[in-house]
Amino acid sequence: MNTIAPTQRTTLIRRPDRGAYDRSIVNAILDEALICHVGFAVDGQPFVLPTTHARIDDRLYIHGSVGGRMLRTLRRAAPICVTVTLIDGLVLARSAFHHSMNYRSVVILGGAREVKDEAEKRRAFSALVDHVLAGRSAQTREASTQELKATSVLCVSIEEASAKVRTGPPLDDEGDYDLPYWAGVLPVRLEAQAPIADPRLTAGIGIPTSLMDYQRARVPL
Amino acid sequence: MNTIAPTQRTTLIRRPDRGAYDRSIVNAILDEALICHVGFAVDGQPFVLPTTHARIDDRLYIHGSVGGRMLRTLRRAAPICVTVTLIDGLVLARSAFHHSMNYRSVVILGGAREVKDEAEKRRAFSALVDHVLAGRSAQTREASTQELKATSVLCVSIEEASAKVRTGPPLDDEGDYDLPYWAGVLPVRLEAQAPIADPRLTAGIGIPTSLMDYQRARVPL
Repeated sequence: MNTIAPTQRTTLIRRPDRGAYDRSIVNAILDEALICHVGFAVDGQPFVLPTTHARIDDRLYIHGSVGGRMLRTLRRAAPICVTVTLIDGLVLARSAFHHSMNYRSVVILGGAREVKDEAEKRRAFSALVDHVLAGRSAQTREASTQELKATSVLCVSIEEASAKVRTGPPLDDEGDYDLPYWAGVLPVRLEAQAPIADPRLTAGIGIPTSLMDYQRARVPL
Repeated sequence: MNTIAPTQRTTLIRRPDRGAYDRSIVNAILDEALICHVGFAVDGQPFVLPTTHARIDDRLYIHGSVGGRMLRTLRRAAPICVTVTLIDGLVLARSAFHHSMNYRSVVILGGAREVKDEAEKRRAFSALVDHVLAGRSAQTREASTQELKATSVLCVSIEEASAKVRTGPPLDDEGDYDLPYWAGVLPVRLEAQAPIADPRLTAGIGIPTSLMDYQRARVPL
């Protein structure tokens, strides 16, 4: 099994039983999540911003914006935290106290590197598009050199990382099981609706088959 | 219109046209999102952790864990960032460069206060349960004094906050509209599946009606 070594900072203090350091679990969560939340600090004030990401092997690429606060900070190799979270269900217990969520999350700590090599940047850029819709980068006009320059891509090594996973039914206090309240899980899932064609779509261009039955991959747990 | 005054830190650098400071928009996004991502820094290293939240008026309550890293840091009035993000659709453009997401997000900056007053803590605790499922706090055993003590609740004033919203079709470069690629939006939505009863559920307890047609409120945009 390919395991990520826990560090003091990625060792779970709360609920260590929910922790996972297997690369396969971490990767599956990163690949399924549409977006991540990137944390960085400016003059001691933390900022958390959503953005898109894509994984290539043990590297996570995130989409930045030239001139944005995030990039201005992170290109100076400032510490970063990238978190992705998938919500799998509402856990409804008999007691308010034991209400919870079923979820899968990954936290990556480290420093970000701005991708400057044009070939790597181009690969990352395609991966960011394909992360959202598999195969899409081959079905669009690829980025011009100018557009690549106007986009920033940051790379974070998936070295210091941990996953946290909760599954299964509520766990009530033994004495509460007789209470007359419904208990169980309401599963939730991000689901695609019917595609909406651009009003300016050229007549005769059909909906790509990849959109017809779109779903994010799911880890069998 | 009830507006939140932008500060230097909440003024959008990137795409200011997507910014919103109306309290009604900020509140609706906070209320719809199941979870938030909380950012804080420990010795200069940012951490971003998912947790549940609930809003009461202009205060956001977040669920902490006694003894966890987050609470140990934030109870010392350290700066905090709370971000919620709703993904509404994949925006598929004719060019890779103009691919985007439709989303609604809120960023709140400030300091957190640990809720110690028992009455306020009880109200917040109920709000946290009801945020996930309306009316649920009345359909469970309420928290004992012991359980309240074992739970931490933090409060952040929704004073320094901004929303960011993207809607609508892709915006391609004028010269790209003739390209032979499908373009449009694939809407996505968090949807509930069929409830799964706890294997230990007492026979005869039916599924609450609130679970039968569960959906998060949505802002009409």
